[in-house]
Amino acid sequence: MPEVKMHAIKVLAFDVFGTLVDWRTSIAREAAAVFARAGRDDIDPAGFADAWRGLYQPAMEAVRSGKRPFTRLDVLNRETLDVLLARHEVVLDDAAAADFAFAWRRLDPWPDTVAGLARLRGRYPVVTLSNGNIALTMEIARRSGMVFDAILGAEAVQAFKPTPESYLRTADLLGIAPGQLCLGAAHHSDLAAARKCGLQCAYIDRPMEYGGALAPDAHMAQDWEWSAASLVELAETMGG
Amino acid sequence: MPEVKMHAIKVLAFDVFGTLVDWRTSIAREAAAVFARAGRDDIDPAGFADAWRGLYQPAMEAVRSGKRPFTRLDVLNRETLDVLLARHEVVLDDAAAADFAFAWRRLDPWPDTVAGLARLRGRYPVVTLSNGNIALTMEIARRSGMVFDAILGAEAVQAFKPTPESYLRTADLLGIAPGQLCLGAAHHSDLAAARKCGLQCAYIDRPMEYGGALAPDAHMAQDWEWSAASLVELAETMGG
Repeated sequence: MPEVKMHAIKVLAFDVFGTLVDWRTSIAREAAAVFARAGRDDIDPAGFADAWRGLYQPAMEAVRSGKRPFTRLDVLNRETLDVLLARHEVVLDDAAAADFAFAWRRLDPWPDTVAGLARLRGRYPVVTLSNGNIALTMEIARRSGMVFDAILGAEAVQAFKPTPESYLRTADLLGIAPGQLCLGAAHHSDLAAARKCGLQCAYIDRPMEYGGALAPDAHMAQDWEWSAASLVELAETMGG
Repeated sequence: MPEVKMHAIKVLAFDVFGTLVDWRTSIAREAAAVFARAGRDDIDPAGFADAWRGLYQPAMEAVRSGKRPFTRLDVLNRETLDVLLARHEVVLDDAAAADFAFAWRRLDPWPDTVAGLARLRGRYPVVTLSNGNIALTMEIARRSGMVFDAILGAEAVQAFKPTPESYLRTADLLGIAPGQLCLGAAHHSDLAAARKCGLQCAYIDRPMEYGGALAPDAHMAQDWEWSAASLVELAETMGG
């Protein structure tokens, strides 16, 4: 069965945050530096990273529900940062806060990401399908040496995951059927929504995304078309 | 002066047809094969390529003028092909016509393109700013080994060049000011429109784009920020 489906794949699309890059470690590192400069070593940087990530879904929900027009993640990240800084009574000037918000453009890849993507790209066109905006995703890719055939995602289709439009419009942009598009992601919730739209799904296990804690969507695990412990293993499985 | 401006460039954007790829030779080659199969060796393939390219601007003008919603170039290429085939009384089945229309996805790069882009990309993020749709541009790049940091252009901003929106929305997508974006193109008309929007401009001379004939916009030549006979020379000039 997987063999038959594999031949139908025209493009591989990857989620970015958590799947390709380790947002928690990167954000915690930048937060620690910011808090040290502000004389606020009492704030736990990893907890701050988790809290910031926690405000991510509610911020996008305002757009998904139609209460707000499409808004770039760069903007949402700054807004949620300001909420958290106020909560912790940390005062930064505008330039420092803007730079801190851009920490989401400076996330480090997992150790296997760059090599695994390069192998997969030898066999399939590889694009991004992230809720990050284009400039943000492009900067992450360029800093880390990830090479993509195109930067797509929420901004390109003006719809955040996991709305059906985010997956279906991406396939349409690529000029292919949803079943010819395979989403690679570390999140069962993302894959479940993509599967409902007819996409094929590749799960990449990232047990350290939440510092070892259980992922919030662990209960949504299914039998995906592919499943791997790293992108290099996925490339081996998919013949890349 | 150029030195001062050069430091302000954040992203290099390249036109594709004519600037990076030799559309005329590639289309004429595919046309010759199609006409041979159809027993129509009497049709001049290079003349057919010129005529097809000649229908490109009027097709986009229907969108630019607002008479028609944004339409992908893949679709326009098929429509203009059907016009030309009817004019020459060539009958192809739908699959053959669809494949011929996709000849625009199989254009070969100029000899200096891949090496020049690689050098420039060592210094600047490099994106496309073409009227080609995303899937078309992605396929050209992938086939030829051109690497970009992002595939942007008309479809990404829902506006064909040379409208001001096509340039300004591209800078906005990238999160930079128009003056921080440099357009590289072989067409003075494209550069002139970009300059009016505040972009910096790099002219790449492609004397063989029209088989040696004068370019239709030769009279719009200006003193551009950069000018080069190839992308490798441009990289040398810009320090890439």
